[in-house]
Amino acid sequence: MQITGQMLIGQSSVQGHKKAIRALNPATNEYLQPEFLGGDQQHVDQAVALAWQAFDDYRAMGNESRAVFLETIADEILALGDSLVERAMAETGLPQARIEGERGRTMGQLRMFASVVRMGKFLDARIDPALPERAPLPRADLRFQKIPLGPVAVFGASNFPLAFSVAGGDTASALAAGCPVVVKAHSAHPGTSELVGRAIQQAVKKCQMPEGVFSLLFGAGADVGGALVAHPHIKAVGFTGSRSGGVALMNIAANRPEPIPVYAEMSSINPVFIMSNKLAAEAKAVASGFVASLAMGAGQFCTNPGLVVVMDGPDCEAFLQQVAEETQALGTQTMLSPGIYQAYCEGVNSLTEHDGVSLLAQSASSDLPNQCQAHVFVTQAKTFLADKGLEGEVFGSTSLVIKCQSLEEYRQLAEHFEGQLTITIQMNDADSDAVKALLPVFERKAGRLLCNGYPTGVEVCQAMVHGGPFPATSDSRSTSVGSAAIERFLRPVCYQDFPASLLPSSVRDDNPLTIPQLVDSKLKLA
Amino acid sequence: MQITGQMLIGQSSVQGHKKAIRALNPATNEYLQPEFLGGDQQHVDQAVALAWQAFDDYRAMGNESRAVFLETIADEILALGDSLVERAMAETGLPQARIEGERGRTMGQLRMFASVVRMGKFLDARIDPALPERAPLPRADLRFQKIPLGPVAVFGASNFPLAFSVAGGDTASALAAGCPVVVKAHSAHPGTSELVGRAIQQAVKKCQMPEGVFSLLFGAGADVGGALVAHPHIKAVGFTGSRSGGVALMNIAANRPEPIPVYAEMSSINPVFIMSNKLAAEAKAVASGFVASLAMGAGQFCTNPGLVVVMDGPDCEAFLQQVAEETQALGTQTMLSPGIYQAYCEGVNSLTEHDGVSLLAQSASSDLPNQCQAHVFVTQAKTFLADKGLEGEVFGSTSLVIKCQSLEEYRQLAEHFEGQLTITIQMNDADSDAVKALLPVFERKAGRLLCNGYPTGVEVCQAMVHGGPFPATSDSRSTSVGSAAIERFLRPVCYQDFPASLLPSSVRDDNPLTIPQLVDSKLKLA
Repeated sequence: MQITGQMLIGQSSVQGHKKAIRALNPATNEYLQPEFLGGDQQHVDQAVALAWQAFDDYRAMGNESRAVFLETIADEILALGDSLVERAMAETGLPQARIEGERGRTMGQLRMFASVVRMGKFLDARIDPALPERAPLPRADLRFQKIPLGPVAVFGASNFPLAFSVAGGDTASALAAGCPVVVKAHSAHPGTSELVGRAIQQAVKKCQMPEGVFSLLFGAGADVGGALVAHPHIKAVGFTGSRSGGVALMNIAANRPEPIPVYAEMSSINPVFIMSNKLAAEAKAVASGFVASLAMGAGQFCTNPGLVVVMDGPDCEAFLQQVAEETQALGTQTMLSPGIYQAYCEGVNSLTEHDGVSLLAQSASSDLPNQCQAHVFVTQAKTFLADKGLEGEVFGSTSLVIKCQSLEEYRQLAEHFEGQLTITIQMNDADSDAVKALLPVFERKAGRLLCNGYPTGVEVCQAMVHGGPFPATSDSRSTSVGSAAIERFLRPVCYQDFPASLLPSSVRDDNPLTIPQLVDSKLKLA
Repeated sequence: MQITGQMLIGQSSVQGHKKAIRALNPATNEYLQPEFLGGDQQHVDQAVALAWQAFDDYRAMGNESRAVFLETIADEILALGDSLVERAMAETGLPQARIEGERGRTMGQLRMFASVVRMGKFLDARIDPALPERAPLPRADLRFQKIPLGPVAVFGASNFPLAFSVAGGDTASALAAGCPVVVKAHSAHPGTSELVGRAIQQAVKKCQMPEGVFSLLFGAGADVGGALVAHPHIKAVGFTGSRSGGVALMNIAANRPEPIPVYAEMSSINPVFIMSNKLAAEAKAVASGFVASLAMGAGQFCTNPGLVVVMDGPDCEAFLQQVAEETQALGTQTMLSPGIYQAYCEGVNSLTEHDGVSLLAQSASSDLPNQCQAHVFVTQAKTFLADKGLEGEVFGSTSLVIKCQSLEEYRQLAEHFEGQLTITIQMNDADSDAVKALLPVFERKAGRLLCNGYPTGVEVCQAMVHGGPFPATSDSRSTSVGSAAIERFLRPVCYQDFPASLLPSSVRDDNPLTIPQLVDSKLKLA
């Protein structure tokens, strides 16, 4: 498959004419070919008009067709073969195993949503049969299902060029819900984006879907991104990226004549609370697990463990010594882009220069471009609590260890933190009572709580929550990973006294979709 | 039970000191005793601090305790006896049968949410067991449940002094979800609000709930309402009222440091589409049903049929003649307040003076105060489509009949309408094909679609949707009536590799709550 630099609007390939985006290999700082000329308002209008035109037809297709479409996208991505892996490696500096693993995750995610669509639980079908004899008033026949919101704008993330990008979780869940998707490609991996976009375009054709069900645009955020979110026929937004970027989209969406939901996954520092008995028993193992999680992927994960809360004392010193040794032994890793590398260096410098923070250890340095040097800093709970600035996310392999003098400081810290994607608890049985007392606070603060693991690694499954209170996300009622992500793009509709011939199949008495239905307040399996 | 004019903050009665609210009997324009002195920021802070303090304790209580609490509120409302009915009648001008019916609805709603809590489907429990042998990476044990968002601010509506007010659907669903509630009473029925508030206060005491689980404040929107929505410990808002009021709250909520969801049910004109074959067969019956729905409760419903779409021709003339006769035969009815009456008169005047609109009929007039005189106006589809101003809601018994020259104009109108709570279809079998073609548009535009009924009358049940796209509501993903209303106040949390002793009971293997669980991607009943 050739990379042409063109946008994909429905089944057409369209050349932009705004400022060119150029992909860069962060491992060499060399530009890659071709150029991707940016789109403008007119391209946004074309793509959204096609999406709007496709919407009623697409959502009318049966769940089975939609499931097959999602599976076909997975097949077409695999069919891109090595060219996809090579381009993604070149555009991101990520190693082959990681890109291949991410490709598998992306395909698995599409297939999971196919199974979610077939299962039909997401339709939340409900039937309250008529009660014509009820006094004083009869009850009408009332039926309920969820339908898709409408065309969705998806913004690819820089740090997962496949799994959170053109055919990533937002696209997969929106298509599964029955929503056409218009993607604005992330400018850091435009070639990868075009390849994946062409795979989806091919799947649209093979499955005879309405062409507007998918389009891919290039361009600057202010031109294409803002215009997309403001377009009256866009009905929801999926975004993974920076806090400032997410908040900007939230503001555009809230100020439209018709406000729309924005699902922005933004900023999280993922505190790890190490409990005292665990630390006394396994200081070295906890340290090793932490450093491994910190170093993974140059720390370029939303779930990177950016804070560690630990009780001061001799066990803490043993832990810190092990962390220091293992951190110093780490090599450097190429970061995703010069911009991310630059921001990382600034974050590290700001911690280095902070009076109340000391550097515990750093990894080796390197003369290669855009190399992430891991850093671990240490501070006191009192210092942290007094300075909101210390809570900012440093995107990359840097973490701040906070020494506490009491469990009360653990609690104060937990209450002090902004909303998080994850909170991790390192504990053993003897810590149970202390953890029980903290759990209600943790639940209020994060979308996922982990015991004795590390937050990196986000399983794609039914029970995953990759979400959390602001600023972790713009909408704590949702998740952007896992099957519940489909619920972001649905709304309920009630059908009152409809003749059987006009009822949606999800709420028919004979249940032709063989899905769960809540009938007369009783849940019935298919 | 005495009405004191005091606010209820937890278990305390507190006198305000801002401008007094005075209840008025709209049937006589006479003020009622006592005065209700408004609260200020300090009272908001006290009530929200108590709510925040109560939150973790309240949500930790078992589902059964919560269900009994909701049932006890219903009992305590009934125990208020005639004093509640009389005060509500005096403050609203609504007749006794309506108030008693609404009391039954309010109690039934609380009891329905008790059963919803016991059933536990709302927790959406999910279990993905660990797969330690999976290659290349094992899967952790992952479990998922929904937890409450936090304290909720509820704004009572003027038109349902019981069912959409202090102990109405927003309060019932928020308490059911596990959220403490702070109500800002509607200034049109403060005595009714205090009585119901005291019933809840009594139930809190009897059930030994933490006192902060409920508070009731009086005051101006700008003082108390705005401060409530802006308070950092308020995590969601329920509102039923005007579009301008709802949008104001949406703006406050979106501009907080931590934005929060607002569920505002605002503005809907509830179009009724009369299909040609139905009209030919039953013009008179359709007219009678329409006028009865229009006249009900002086048209002071969010679901009042404010627009009728009909095909021009002889059947239309028969329909209009019958509508005219029945409208002229209607008596007047007292409206809820002088403010609502004033706004109604202005709305009617604006239609009367519109060049493209003609008056079909009006009901008798009356010299009594605040009397709603029903009006039916007629216009052409072309006129309506050309003037956005004709789509404004006139709150009261007024409707605008739109004559069409083609089915294409039906479609144009449906696409042209803003989001609605309801769309009604009057049809028979011969209209099926025409309706099928319009249904996708109707689904996109409204939360509830009705065949051969009228939109007034909103059943409280599992399958109800009282919601719809903006501006019908601020959030089309939800309903404010029916069991799904509980979902507005929940967010998911994932528990990874938790020891059994720390797991919430909803996701334990032994399922002690006997609720539905999604185990390893298979839905299991209790």
